[in-house]
Amino acid sequence: MIRLPMTEIDRTKPGPLFLKVKEEILRQIRLGGLRPGDRLPPTRQLATELGLNRGTVSVAYEQLVDEGVLESHVGRGTYVATELTMDALGISNGASSEYKWVDHFAGIDPPPPNLYPQVNGNLIPFHRNVPDEALFPIDTFRVSLDESLSIEGERLLSYAPKAGHPKFVSFLIDYLAENRLGGVSQNEVLVVNGSQQALDLIGRAFLRPGDTVVVENPSYSGALELFRSFGARIIGVDMDEFGLRIDEAEKILARERPKFIYTMPTFQNPTGRNLASARREQLVRLAARYEVPVIEDDFDGELFYDNPPPPTLKSLPGNQGVIYIGTPSKMLFPGLRIGWIVAEDAVVEHLGRVKQIADLSSSQLLQAAFARFAQSGALSKHKDRVRRAYKERRDQLLQSLEKRMPEGCSWSRPGGGMSLLVSLPSHLRADRVLEITADQGVLFSPGSWFFVNRGHHHLRLCFGSVPVEQIDTGVKVLADAVKRELRDRRAVALGKPSSLPQV
Amino acid sequence: MIRLPMTEIDRTKPGPLFLKVKEEILRQIRLGGLRPGDRLPPTRQLATELGLNRGTVSVAYEQLVDEGVLESHVGRGTYVATELTMDALGISNGASSEYKWVDHFAGIDPPPPNLYPQVNGNLIPFHRNVPDEALFPIDTFRVSLDESLSIEGERLLSYAPKAGHPKFVSFLIDYLAENRLGGVSQNEVLVVNGSQQALDLIGRAFLRPGDTVVVENPSYSGALELFRSFGARIIGVDMDEFGLRIDEAEKILARERPKFIYTMPTFQNPTGRNLASARREQLVRLAARYEVPVIEDDFDGELFYDNPPPPTLKSLPGNQGVIYIGTPSKMLFPGLRIGWIVAEDAVVEHLGRVKQIADLSSSQLLQAAFARFAQSGALSKHKDRVRRAYKERRDQLLQSLEKRMPEGCSWSRPGGGMSLLVSLPSHLRADRVLEITADQGVLFSPGSWFFVNRGHHHLRLCFGSVPVEQIDTGVKVLADAVKRELRDRRAVALGKPSSLPQV
Repeated sequence: MIRLPMTEIDRTKPGPLFLKVKEEILRQIRLGGLRPGDRLPPTRQLATELGLNRGTVSVAYEQLVDEGVLESHVGRGTYVATELTMDALGISNGASSEYKWVDHFAGIDPPPPNLYPQVNGNLIPFHRNVPDEALFPIDTFRVSLDESLSIEGERLLSYAPKAGHPKFVSFLIDYLAENRLGGVSQNEVLVVNGSQQALDLIGRAFLRPGDTVVVENPSYSGALELFRSFGARIIGVDMDEFGLRIDEAEKILARERPKFIYTMPTFQNPTGRNLASARREQLVRLAARYEVPVIEDDFDGELFYDNPPPPTLKSLPGNQGVIYIGTPSKMLFPGLRIGWIVAEDAVVEHLGRVKQIADLSSSQLLQAAFARFAQSGALSKHKDRVRRAYKERRDQLLQSLEKRMPEGCSWSRPGGGMSLLVSLPSHLRADRVLEITADQGVLFSPGSWFFVNRGHHHLRLCFGSVPVEQIDTGVKVLADAVKRELRDRRAVALGKPSSLPQV
Repeated sequence: MIRLPMTEIDRTKPGPLFLKVKEEILRQIRLGGLRPGDRLPPTRQLATELGLNRGTVSVAYEQLVDEGVLESHVGRGTYVATELTMDALGISNGASSEYKWVDHFAGIDPPPPNLYPQVNGNLIPFHRNVPDEALFPIDTFRVSLDESLSIEGERLLSYAPKAGHPKFVSFLIDYLAENRLGGVSQNEVLVVNGSQQALDLIGRAFLRPGDTVVVENPSYSGALELFRSFGARIIGVDMDEFGLRIDEAEKILARERPKFIYTMPTFQNPTGRNLASARREQLVRLAARYEVPVIEDDFDGELFYDNPPPPTLKSLPGNQGVIYIGTPSKMLFPGLRIGWIVAEDAVVEHLGRVKQIADLSSSQLLQAAFARFAQSGALSKHKDRVRRAYKERRDQLLQSLEKRMPEGCSWSRPGGGMSLLVSLPSHLRADRVLEITADQGVLFSPGSWFFVNRGHHHLRLCFGSVPVEQIDTGVKVLADAVKRELRDRRAVALGKPSSLPQV
């Protein structure tokens, strides 16, 4: 008995059944399941197999014969034409298999990347929220790296134990106690691939499609994308100069059941603001009252330029629900791909299992080298150095904004970190301003990437990667572009022709 | 108006409503939302707010007054008792907040880790599917690492471009062409954190709960766990000495619509078997006919001890649907955490976006060091060296099994890789044998971890980490344990007392 490799006709799709039979036969020929000269089953047999009327199959066969795809020989049956043209099959080239990959992917798509306009010539990179490579202490680190491998040897190139390189975990507990967070025990630590993986593991462990996540508004765009990729609904809590507004958060917690609150209490991205001390205590208490975990992303807590920041949430009373994330990416090298999670053991145990499934383990060599670098005293020196350098850049940036930006603009005044948020008059769009400044080599990030909604008139300036002597030039380009937009908007309002095409 | 911080009573849970009101009040007191001396809303008000009868709330209040949690003052209302004992609240210690984390986690739990029995004293590690640390070329690699950082500098400690370190991607294309796979272009490569992350990104991109995945039976336990963590249903295709049975696979594809076929055609884990050349072509054609992607995990394809293995699936005609995974973890160091995916650009583009969300990027330093190590010629030398060493171990293992294992046992004969599968008589359980051998320091992995079902009488022996002079001793311990189990099973069948407790 001749059998077609096709198994079923999808009746849920619209369209006549004979067309579906035709399409399925064409698909099988394209994929090689039916070859030129192959005999097709009799219409009666195929009709029975597919649960269709014989007439439906006959019409399909007849049309395919008319189109030259099949050949009918009286008394011998129906065959795939021996001289098939690609044209007859609707194939544009000779490829024997074309996967429509988009039909294979499942779940929620990852977001498209945020793209900046092309820049030719000299770039003033206010868009890069990364430390300045020119300040990287490569030579000192090379020594730490080489010594680590020389002293600790083979073990550093094997799989790591679940929590991370054991010596690194011990070092980290002391390091945290000295710098951010005391009283952490071994089973409360998980070492991961940078703070992005920390967020990812937490998202994976906590979120199902339709779950709610509460964030500061604005927040880190990479976290928003991540949470959305798990199908989470995101609710933003407004901020003021003292950080996240606790009264707003309380209103949301009273009516929603979020899976967690994601916050950067210290030198927040993009605003650079600190959550005030009293609010830190309030937030921890509020979250505990509603039994909502708090994800504390402390990615740049050590980069302070005036006073040290208030204590971390994780070090406050009632911190059981706080899941703390740290990383050397901003204070030292992003390329180390090191991050850490500090949380109650039940959380660390669970996240550790998720991590093992995700990528088995992280590099022990890089963890060992970082610990050695820190223990040698080089990290302290480096932190002092970059604090001075970034402070100078921040001061210059604030001074230039003050001097150059037109009326109606405002900006945050960060006490640390590498970024601040500029707010334009609300009828302007930062992405339009960006198109203008990009022509002169000045890039920044439009606020819409950071706001849960209505962020179009904000923009983020990062000063970590911009040499101090370029800052004023960059701000002048920005200020001129804003002024031009203000003029053009006014002109449009008054009915005058614009100097820009209205797209 | 007095308001309780509670917002709702869960009616979907079983149990009387007044008990739920009681529990909610107790919960609020434990969490600090209600404090000693706080006044509760009148029963009528709370009943209205919660949509309950007033009587239900009254009973809850009365019982809590009886239990000393609340106090009722005639004419003034009901209050939280001012002298509350922890005992009255059902709290064992003074903790003010206790998160029941298990209630917070979402989705499908990661599996519990596979645990081996405790071993005291000398260990013969047939359970470790990792290369032997004693063979690690640490000193040569130290030079490559140091030179990379010295020559390429800062860039290696910054975030990597999406596809990976550009120089590494170029190197990799040449390396693959020489060793596994020709004609790969830049936009078909994605560098990841070891092959486990490759599998994870693929699972994330393709799988939704309820989806079907087809695997060899047995297969890599870490892949089975991973796919299950996405809620996938796993169908195993039986293997014979030529690898996966294509006829079985075809039957499954004819009735199922799997999201992909996951296969290790070369030196499969756990069997060490190769998929025969003809079957490779059949598999690629079969998958293309049904438009099912094939995940080719080539984790140890370069570790051959007799003849080089047949060509990779990805290098065969009709390979558009093949997603290829490679890694230096088994041939060099697992701790490099390097892996690569080669696939059509649409797949690489999508997986790259998933990777960016998952952990932004991988270490460029380790990629650069690996490329330099390979380009210096050291990798070739190392591969020759480990091939000789592991071949000797494999030969010894096969010889010892032949000599010592009792009748009724069989095993696969791997032409490469680091593992083989032993099959015991089907009435024995490998996990019981493991309990016996562990007492004498010999560990292996029970087959049930690798089989989709009915794997209890199989076991995996890895020879990569066992020094050649320990292999025969280890096999003797195993063979004796199997003989003892065979005797005891027979004794049980004959009604004689067993020397082992029957649990």
